[in-house]
Amino acid sequence: MKKLAFLVLCICSLQFAKAQQEDQTTIKKIYDTQLKDGVGYKWLQYLSLHIGGRLSGSLEAQQAVDYTKSVMDSSGFDKVWLQEVMVPKWVRGLPEFAYIESKPGYTTNVNICALGGSVATPSLGIKANVVEVHSLEELQTLGKAKLEGKIVFFNRPMDPTYVDTFEAYEHAVDQRGSGAREASKYGAVGVIVRSMNLRLDDFPHTGGTNYGDLPPVERIPAAAISTNDAELLSSMLALNPNTKFYFKQNCKQMPDVKSYNVIGEIKGSTYPNQVIVVGAHLDSWDLGQGAQDDGAGCVQSIEVLHLLKKIGYQPKHTIRVVLYMNEENGLRGGLAYGKYASTNPSEKNIFALESDSGGFTPRGFTFECTDTQFQQFESYKPLFAPYLIQLFEKGGAGADIGPLKETGTALAGLKPDSQRYFDHHHSNNDTFDQVNKRELYMGTATMASLIYLIDKYGIKE
Amino acid sequence: MKKLAFLVLCICSLQFAKAQQEDQTTIKKIYDTQLKDGVGYKWLQYLSLHIGGRLSGSLEAQQAVDYTKSVMDSSGFDKVWLQEVMVPKWVRGLPEFAYIESKPGYTTNVNICALGGSVATPSLGIKANVVEVHSLEELQTLGKAKLEGKIVFFNRPMDPTYVDTFEAYEHAVDQRGSGAREASKYGAVGVIVRSMNLRLDDFPHTGGTNYGDLPPVERIPAAAISTNDAELLSSMLALNPNTKFYFKQNCKQMPDVKSYNVIGEIKGSTYPNQVIVVGAHLDSWDLGQGAQDDGAGCVQSIEVLHLLKKIGYQPKHTIRVVLYMNEENGLRGGLAYGKYASTNPSEKNIFALESDSGGFTPRGFTFECTDTQFQQFESYKPLFAPYLIQLFEKGGAGADIGPLKETGTALAGLKPDSQRYFDHHHSNNDTFDQVNKRELYMGTATMASLIYLIDKYGIKE
Repeated sequence: MKKLAFLVLCICSLQFAKAQQEDQTTIKKIYDTQLKDGVGYKWLQYLSLHIGGRLSGSLEAQQAVDYTKSVMDSSGFDKVWLQEVMVPKWVRGLPEFAYIESKPGYTTNVNICALGGSVATPSLGIKANVVEVHSLEELQTLGKAKLEGKIVFFNRPMDPTYVDTFEAYEHAVDQRGSGAREASKYGAVGVIVRSMNLRLDDFPHTGGTNYGDLPPVERIPAAAISTNDAELLSSMLALNPNTKFYFKQNCKQMPDVKSYNVIGEIKGSTYPNQVIVVGAHLDSWDLGQGAQDDGAGCVQSIEVLHLLKKIGYQPKHTIRVVLYMNEENGLRGGLAYGKYASTNPSEKNIFALESDSGGFTPRGFTFECTDTQFQQFESYKPLFAPYLIQLFEKGGAGADIGPLKETGTALAGLKPDSQRYFDHHHSNNDTFDQVNKRELYMGTATMASLIYLIDKYGIKE
Repeated sequence: MKKLAFLVLCICSLQFAKAQQEDQTTIKKIYDTQLKDGVGYKWLQYLSLHIGGRLSGSLEAQQAVDYTKSVMDSSGFDKVWLQEVMVPKWVRGLPEFAYIESKPGYTTNVNICALGGSVATPSLGIKANVVEVHSLEELQTLGKAKLEGKIVFFNRPMDPTYVDTFEAYEHAVDQRGSGAREASKYGAVGVIVRSMNLRLDDFPHTGGTNYGDLPPVERIPAAAISTNDAELLSSMLALNPNTKFYFKQNCKQMPDVKSYNVIGEIKGSTYPNQVIVVGAHLDSWDLGQGAQDDGAGCVQSIEVLHLLKKIGYQPKHTIRVVLYMNEENGLRGGLAYGKYASTNPSEKNIFALESDSGGFTPRGFTFECTDTQFQQFESYKPLFAPYLIQLFEKGGAGADIGPLKETGTALAGLKPDSQRYFDHHHSNNDTFDQVNKRELYMGTATMASLIYLIDKYGIKE
């Protein structure tokens, strides 16, 4: 009996070693092929330079739908389709204009951009005294007495001591997201927010502001100011508290319009009704070209399928790429796909991976899953070590795939190096030339390797 | 007796825990201070934009000596001095000129630059047929019959499948380093080498070529060609093997000139005669601004001392920054400092750290040391985990500190992310705007943290 047990153990060990050897070989093939013959960089070039910024509801967003669908069509996927989704349409209108007035007639122009979702200023603009604050809580302390009729200037910088710049973002973005809503409650007439940017430069960075259920008449215009100009405004206020600020913006919320998630898949040979999803968001803000946010993630996601086909891998599960529309100002695409997944009894989405942190050198993944599943994912770590992928952590995986959590899908987010991300995010500086091909492709191969392993071993409950 | 042993164990454990807590706190202070209040980026701006490329023996190299000495002087180090060193002086002369001639009168200009140390062409230039090869070995196969009177075109690209791009470099750079020497043995009249660059662009990348002991009369001119133009030349040769290549360059080797290593130190409180060295090379190639190679390493090295002073840390050992002159084409500075260290009986260099792989996000260190020492260094790994520094490996630490090995100094090299390095290396593209402040500062703090630990715990034999 003991001998038999020993024999079984030996066979198991040998099989395990063989499987590991096979995984190493396949993953090396994935990285080698991508680094040698990747094509996604060219797709990104088209998306960035020929289409550019593609805010939901815009012509460019529709062009991005058409283009990425054509890429999937010509990649020989088993099925490519569009999922209809109604999206909000907000337009920036004419360029914004702003200046600081230190005394009547003495003005300095500054760089601002309307925050996404903001209302316009009156057509002549707004000029008012400025109250500089560093938190939402400070509004309460100041109260109506100090804020009524004023422009509130939120100037708390992102904290540079966070190694992960996304943490610095999370700890500063309440000013942008809630500043206008809260300041309006105290009678402020406008809000200027220091751009979510860790360095000093001249780019204003947009991003959504959320009025919540404030009635339209109480909504006040909100804009981001470049970090250089935020410093300038702050120092001018220190010299002269009577400094005034003028701004004019022409943005407008329009009725919802029809748009699409772009979806393609390779059918699974063994479990065609079990779906592994890889995706990113196709829309971007209107400033810049949406290259890092999130063109990079889109071309990586399409190329995961393209690459697995290229190396001749036949998946057991259905592998599906989903390019979600409207992550930036509504999440309608993510919600629509989530609803489709939860109401379609003929299939089960077992795993979803998102890339929405830029096309920088990949460092690892964050997972939203059960402890058992996390153990499974962690067991893959040694396979990624040769590619310097060391980070396997629990943590937020991505906005678009969030709705899939309800259907019990295990979620993962690609985690690239974050040091440069907020130099580009939501600004005119998010351009194709800021994406490095090798960094992008290292991310693509890292995603494809995880998808391969999930496909091969399935997902534990 | 047992009780006493238990008590001793408890005390030891408590002390260990306390020391670890103290290390965590100090290292956090190092990173926080650097990310918040670093200054080296401004030094690098001056070195790159106001001085620029600073090849050994040039006016710019002398300006870099003066400038970095003045930075050290004003940083309050205990001692700052210049170590005299004679360096080779090679000058590029007038810009190079080259074209491909597909048939008489049909020419296409291409981007080349003379390799460092190369001889000039005759004043009217050289025009000859081209033989494309992919290795030094191929020369032997072709022999004098095929190579005499020809220009040899080395066109083996760097292999993109190496994750560490320095490995790709090591496997391709023999063409640049030895191509001219070897081709001249078969009667070739000139050598054109595909630039050591992983991407396709228009920048030629220089770097040293080595004639060995070839008599001057047998030395043939050698130039690098941009990767785009290497592709062009190769495809034109495929269409018409009779394609000719013309190039003209005016470079010249001058007599050696006097230059300096720039050295500063903070005296150790307990072991003033035991020295911990941190450094980088101050010279660069004449193309570009020497920002990544190796201005970044220089400002990081100075700032390690600056930063330790800033957080109020009083080192037990002497901590010394050495900016080595002439790494690129002679290593004279590294050799001179090595000689000084080995012939100065009053002090012992126990540890040396070099930063010469660019100012990118740091990933870890490579060590040249004994196994015992490596175990010591590896035991620090958990302290670096919060900063995503995971790579502790044995491997080459740096050219400049190499000569210290003889005196038994333990060596380490900072290992940053390598994906973008060779986009810039030795070319007009090595400019200040390509260095990211946060990435640079993450490297500085990583270096300072290791130096702090070495200072606190010393080096095992």
